Amino acid sequence: MRTGIATVCLSGTLKEKMQACAIAGFDGIEIFEQDLVTSPLAPEDIRRMAADLGLTLDLYQPFRDFDSVSEDLFAANLRRAEAKFKLMARLGMDTILVCSNVATASIDSDSLRVEQLGRLAGLAGEHGVRVAYEALAWGKYVSDYEHAHRLVEAVDHPNLGTCLDSFHILSRDWDTAPIEAINPGKIFFVQVADAPKLSMDVLSWSRHYRVFPGEGQFELAKFMGHVVRAGYTGPVSLEVFNDVFRQSDVERTAVDAMRSLIWLEEQSAKWLDGTSTEGTAGSAAGSRRRYPMELATLPKVSEPAGFNFAEVKAEDTVQLEKLLGQLGFEFNGRHRTKDVQLWTMGQARVIINEQAASHSEPAIAALGFDVDSPLIASARAQQLKAPVVVRKVQADEEVFQGISAPDSTEIFLCQGSPDGTAAWTAEFGQPDESGGGLQHSSLRDVATPHAVIDHVNLAQPWQHFDEAVLFYTSAMALEPQPFAEVPSPGGLVRSQVMQTSDGAVRLVLNLAPVQQARSEVRKTYQEHIAFAVDDLVATARSARDRGLEFLQIPANYYEDLDARFDLEPGFLATLKELNLLYDRDANGEFLHFYTATVGSVFFEMVERRGNYDGYGAPNAPVRHAVQYDSVHRF
Amino acid sequence: MRTGIATVCLSGTLKEKMQACAIAGFDGIEIFEQDLVTSPLAPEDIRRMAADLGLTLDLYQPFRDFDSVSEDLFAANLRRAEAKFKLMARLGMDTILVCSNVATASIDSDSLRVEQLGRLAGLAGEHGVRVAYEALAWGKYVSDYEHAHRLVEAVDHPNLGTCLDSFHILSRDWDTAPIEAINPGKIFFVQVADAPKLSMDVLSWSRHYRVFPGEGQFELAKFMGHVVRAGYTGPVSLEVFNDVFRQSDVERTAVDAMRSLIWLEEQSAKWLDGTSTEGTAGSAAGSRRRYPMELATLPKVSEPAGFNFAEVKAEDTVQLEKLLGQLGFEFNGRHRTKDVQLWTMGQARVIINEQAASHSEPAIAALGFDVDSPLIASARAQQLKAPVVVRKVQADEEVFQGISAPDSTEIFLCQGSPDGTAAWTAEFGQPDESGGGLQHSSLRDVATPHAVIDHVNLAQPWQHFDEAVLFYTSAMALEPQPFAEVPSPGGLVRSQVMQTSDGAVRLVLNLAPVQQARSEVRKTYQEHIAFAVDDLVATARSARDRGLEFLQIPANYYEDLDARFDLEPGFLATLKELNLLYDRDANGEFLHFYTATVGSVFFEMVERRGNYDGYGAPNAPVRHAVQYDSVHRF
Repeated sequence: MRTGIATVCLSGTLKEKMQACAIAGFDGIEIFEQDLVTSPLAPEDIRRMAADLGLTLDLYQPFRDFDSVSEDLFAANLRRAEAKFKLMARLGMDTILVCSNVATASIDSDSLRVEQLGRLAGLAGEHGVRVAYEALAWGKYVSDYEHAHRLVEAVDHPNLGTCLDSFHILSRDWDTAPIEAINPGKIFFVQVADAPKLSMDVLSWSRHYRVFPGEGQFELAKFMGHVVRAGYTGPVSLEVFNDVFRQSDVERTAVDAMRSLIWLEEQSAKWLDGTSTEGTAGSAAGSRRRYPMELATLPKVSEPAGFNFAEVKAEDTVQLEKLLGQLGFEFNGRHRTKDVQLWTMGQARVIINEQAASHSEPAIAALGFDVDSPLIASARAQQLKAPVVVRKVQADEEVFQGISAPDSTEIFLCQGSPDGTAAWTAEFGQPDESGGGLQHSSLRDVATPHAVIDHVNLAQPWQHFDEAVLFYTSAMALEPQPFAEVPSPGGLVRSQVMQTSDGAVRLVLNLAPVQQARSEVRKTYQEHIAFAVDDLVATARSARDRGLEFLQIPANYYEDLDARFDLEPGFLATLKELNLLYDRDANGEFLHFYTATVGSVFFEMVERRGNYDGYGAPNAPVRHAVQYDSVHRF
Repeated sequence: MRTGIATVCLSGTLKEKMQACAIAGFDGIEIFEQDLVTSPLAPEDIRRMAADLGLTLDLYQPFRDFDSVSEDLFAANLRRAEAKFKLMARLGMDTILVCSNVATASIDSDSLRVEQLGRLAGLAGEHGVRVAYEALAWGKYVSDYEHAHRLVEAVDHPNLGTCLDSFHILSRDWDTAPIEAINPGKIFFVQVADAPKLSMDVLSWSRHYRVFPGEGQFELAKFMGHVVRAGYTGPVSLEVFNDVFRQSDVERTAVDAMRSLIWLEEQSAKWLDGTSTEGTAGSAAGSRRRYPMELATLPKVSEPAGFNFAEVKAEDTVQLEKLLGQLGFEFNGRHRTKDVQLWTMGQARVIINEQAASHSEPAIAALGFDVDSPLIASARAQQLKAPVVVRKVQADEEVFQGISAPDSTEIFLCQGSPDGTAAWTAEFGQPDESGGGLQHSSLRDVATPHAVIDHVNLAQPWQHFDEAVLFYTSAMALEPQPFAEVPSPGGLVRSQVMQTSDGAVRLVLNLAPVQQARSEVRKTYQEHIAFAVDDLVATARSARDRGLEFLQIPANYYEDLDARFDLEPGFLATLKELNLLYDRDANGEFLHFYTATVGSVFFEMVERRGNYDGYGAPNAPVRHAVQYDSVHRF
């Protein structure tokens, strides 16, 4: 699949955009007219720069408001088109996007449109230009791709074809199946964009909220499958108008964009395999290869089986050690060669990394996921342009495959085991008094309560939220769930759960409100690791006896809880006594408590009863308010 | 008019919100349940604190999903209500908001609703509580205030009344006239919110985009007029869910909110006067006084007649002096007691203030507006809670009435003159060689070209954009125009013009994209003063001859201009030679050029031909791109 991207997707100058596209590995770009008009570079310079960067210039766009106009305006439009055709010759470009008329269309006549598009095609032919005609979703008379293509067919000129744009088609819920029937020689260009399903006017939706494939909710694999079946072989090019991408770092956004196309390519192949009508499942991949467009595949991975560990980093780790100890975690010794400690409770493993920069406060640094094959998972992530993380290891130690998530959390791909243990823990222990070996504290352990990492909650910088969703979807096989918005004293926090189908891995990405001068980073960027236990009340009592500082839940909360749930008085008293929070839904119950915060990290202990699958969402505002208050009090 | 505000409008903890409301001067507040539930304060503490702050606790809200439910759920709902009634007794509150059911309604029967609301009213009566029933715009069965009120009338219980919320009524375009027919004793509460007219689902619109009255596009004065005519005398309370206000400084937002009610009060009185059906215009105000609700009035001002001056401040003013001199401005001497210079071209007056803090770069510091009566305008602004600016003056100097705009620009209210001159300029001049007096340079002037300040463009911090719109509307009598969005390499810039009806004063408020780490404040916060002249080409030629550094416009721009407008080749060559930009519409033509930037300030010279009323919007992206490029190059 030839990959492309419109310069309007990115921030910066045309030069910066082109360089970023080359670095990200795109085959070609679409030149958005405004980027050219505002550039100090001459068309010839742009042509040369593209050649040097290994980028083809695939599409000049947009040419607006051409068809369905009076004869006067039509003459001016032809003149305007010719100026652009001449400019394209200097750029060495041969395809221009002409959108259906939005602003100046005054005559609703297909025969007039055929005549006007025909004359445009004729002029284009004289200049060696191909016109790709596109139906905008809000076109005045032409808003449907099939209508646009009927016009193209009626004109029947070699220099006029169709441009298919997934946004304009899927935003209007047009059926995509008829794409397969289009003569591939008449599909001059294909643009793709995803979008969240918003119910707002389609123009605003299009101009502000498009996202890269995999970051929204459109059925893009299906759209692309039809395009591939039609026999199209040209560029598949991103055209994404997004307020955030337009102001984010250009190189990073370009990589995010490229990742989305690599992912889309794989998903399209899957869709084709899944909907192949011929033969058995085994031959499906074979039948796909009959299509002219070649779809590259990625190393396949299943969703992770669980968290292998979580790592917290700090210069001064005393507070972290104290908290974990009070929660009931057991110190399993130090690593034999590194300045890290291992703390465990059942199968919940926390590494405390002491190798932090000076003055750095405790923070979540890394997560380990159990996967079938760390090498294959790492290969997949790297093909999806995830940056590799390298950590020093000794020859006889387990090598972790690590990649860096968009928020800089290090993600390690670990070899899962059927019983949930981790071989690398053998590298930790107390120095044996006889010298040489390590004495494993786990051997001394009699009755460790059952515990696992239930979920991890990471604060996301607002510029990289969509990127993070695509990263975890494509590289880590997690599924985004419908998002929630949680009120906090500092603003609404957008909360996006990414999880495996069985809930064994649950990540909560929190998009914090933009920082205020008054606020401190600590306030909005608190993150946490939650552990699930079998008996939360017992865990809380033990923790209290060990002196744990609980997050203090207001008495008003328990009154409201009682009003909502009509709880048994003894149970309510227990919740209140231990600062436990409670939720209930049709599937089950949820009990949980939070610790005080150390640096930007706190811990949560949870108990899931029945099939409760949430996170106590009604309680999140309480947590935010109390944390805000405790930061603002000091 | 009794003023109120719901705590959900503001950021921070309940305590911070209450304090801010008291400082801003509200009469009372609505307690939003979540603020109470998440607060460490006991209900009795909140009651006491409110009393100490002089705030009444007017409404407890929201109580959701009560009506139209099965008998089982109804019993639970009554129980839930009783818990809240008891809580309200501890708070000393007597009114609760009950919203029409959104989530759990399953039986669409008005007779069932009358029965269930009746039983609720009975229970409320036992607790001395008044239930204000409100139709949510997206209520499952009840979404129309008239429907809600029919239910209230059918129940006919002294403890059940109606809550009217402008958002739920105006977002659905319900007719507001029938409000007048409602028995005022049955209107238990009135909530007001404004909103921009967005075409999106009403729930998202309501939860994120409400603004304070005067910051949106709803006809609130009319809504309030009907409420007043109905005979309502209770609180008029703001209920504004807004993503930005929720994260802005709480005290400042509370003042913005209070300003909106003061303004609404005046606008409502005006609407009543304007629609009074009895007697002459002279007796209109008299007839308004017949209504039970008292509406306070503000000192009346007309829109300003023009800019009196603009002031730029810097530690090192050499570059500014050079630019103004090259543009053709004349140095009119120094102030006799202050470190400020006066530069003029025709009636365009620029003050260069040298009293800047050390290391401060040149920036726009103040604007003077010509008004009929500076004292009355200042009194009005102060009643609208605008902070007063005090500047030292000598006994025999003109005293400027100054107020501070939301972006900290100082706004001075100056005595306008019929011929556009300003008396205070006599305080400037060259020291007379004979000692004592000042020699006025204007006396030496032979042929000053006609020039005025055409518009001023101010960058707005994103947290205070809506506040700025209301400030200039209410205190300065400027009218907001439909806003535009301008693409720039750093993101979309939202551009909001505020102007007088004759265009004599034009302010452009630019909402810059949020800052990136890479970007520099200079980049997005460039601001400018534009001067209108009669012959831009001549002005540009002279400026060029004086060595002015023009903003360099790319050659590509002129090619595109030619494609769009088919310009006369000689004219196009002149534009290109002088770095002039051009626009044309049905009303006329616009020529303009920009200078290089000094600090965060640059200047623009414009010529308006015919009745062109815009700002060269199609050229703004070019300006942004070139400025971005010049900042990033260094």
